[in-house]
Amino acid sequence: MSEPAPATSGSPRRGRPGYDQETVLRRAIELFNEQGYDGTSMGDLARELGFSKSAIYHHVPSKTHLLSLALDEALDGLTRVIEEASNDAAGRTAYARLRQAVHRSVEVLVEHQPAVTLLLRVRGNSEVERAALRRRREIDARLAALVKEAIDEGSLRTDVPPALVSRLLFGMVNSLVEWHRAGGGVEGQQLSEAITTIVFDGLALDQPHQS
Amino acid sequence: MSEPAPATSGSPRRGRPGYDQETVLRRAIELFNEQGYDGTSMGDLARELGFSKSAIYHHVPSKTHLLSLALDEALDGLTRVIEEASNDAAGRTAYARLRQAVHRSVEVLVEHQPAVTLLLRVRGNSEVERAALRRRREIDARLAALVKEAIDEGSLRTDVPPALVSRLLFGMVNSLVEWHRAGGGVEGQQLSEAITTIVFDGLALDQPHQS
Repeated sequence: MSEPAPATSGSPRRGRPGYDQETVLRRAIELFNEQGYDGTSMGDLARELGFSKSAIYHHVPSKTHLLSLALDEALDGLTRVIEEASNDAAGRTAYARLRQAVHRSVEVLVEHQPAVTLLLRVRGNSEVERAALRRRREIDARLAALVKEAIDEGSLRTDVPPALVSRLLFGMVNSLVEWHRAGGGVEGQQLSEAITTIVFDGLALDQPHQS
Repeated sequence: MSEPAPATSGSPRRGRPGYDQETVLRRAIELFNEQGYDGTSMGDLARELGFSKSAIYHHVPSKTHLLSLALDEALDGLTRVIEEASNDAAGRTAYARLRQAVHRSVEVLVEHQPAVTLLLRVRGNSEVERAALRRRREIDARLAALVKEAIDEGSLRTDVPPALVSRLLFGMVNSLVEWHRAGGGVEGQQLSEAITTIVFDGLALDQPHQS
């Protein structure tokens, strides 16, 4: 990552458009994940980036703003997944759309892992966090509705309560933020395949398929 | 939970045997989970229990000691699971023993949820935490070996890498500490059944079983 030039002008513009704020945001997300959002000050972030404590405000207006950008990044990615799963609902089974949603969710988690990690740790301590939790609950509700639709069309087993299916499914998906490391030998595509295969087709071979 | 009587004697014995330390431990685990281990002082804990800051040391020797007890509670439960899965290895298939291990892991998580939640958040910031991480890695390695054994005997599909299977399987199991609430309508037995059914038998019905 190249180091941004410290802002030297007194201009109210916040650094060079795009680039500086993006660099600050990436480092902020890392720090929030390492030491907690509440445990990270703008001073910590400035020090990490080699800015003075006042110069950082040329790049971003506030710590809350950085949190909001980070959570939106994760939520926008996951919202796109559920939007895609709603597309062409007449032409594809709920099963096909759910399977795609699981597959794509894993890709989003891998691609935006630091931002999603932050999102999954949000507990609702501020209005920005509560707004993020509301968006997350809405996504969860749409995914749960898709699970229900797939059960109703006869594609999924009925001996596991639908509300549990959605939680456990995305419990497995979300767990990867805890151990997946980019470049650690397991690629996003392989993870997506592994997760969709396990949850839809099951691990067992030659065992009685209890349906 | 009944409130323990504050220790009034200057005796070096740590409260009444068993009872007091247990009460302190339960409240300590809750506080560690709510506000973080590093963010919780013995003063906070004393205040929660209605003790003076010095009286708490009649009940427990240190904050580290409480952490150690909590992590051992979780690790002892999970160790019993893998020990049980190793029993009667000649008389049962690896598949049967793995399926039982998954089932029992869920029960341990539900039964000891606060202690397991704490364990899953440990990052290795002290010797007690590092010792817990070593025990956890050993349990993970034994579970991964059991997955490998089940694959080798031909019970599990081979198109998902064995190292991933174990991580994803217990990723789903561990995820329940984030959302399961005792008395929330889903009981431990139902959760165990749901998880083992999903991961071994798969969610899909009437879809091509890709083996």
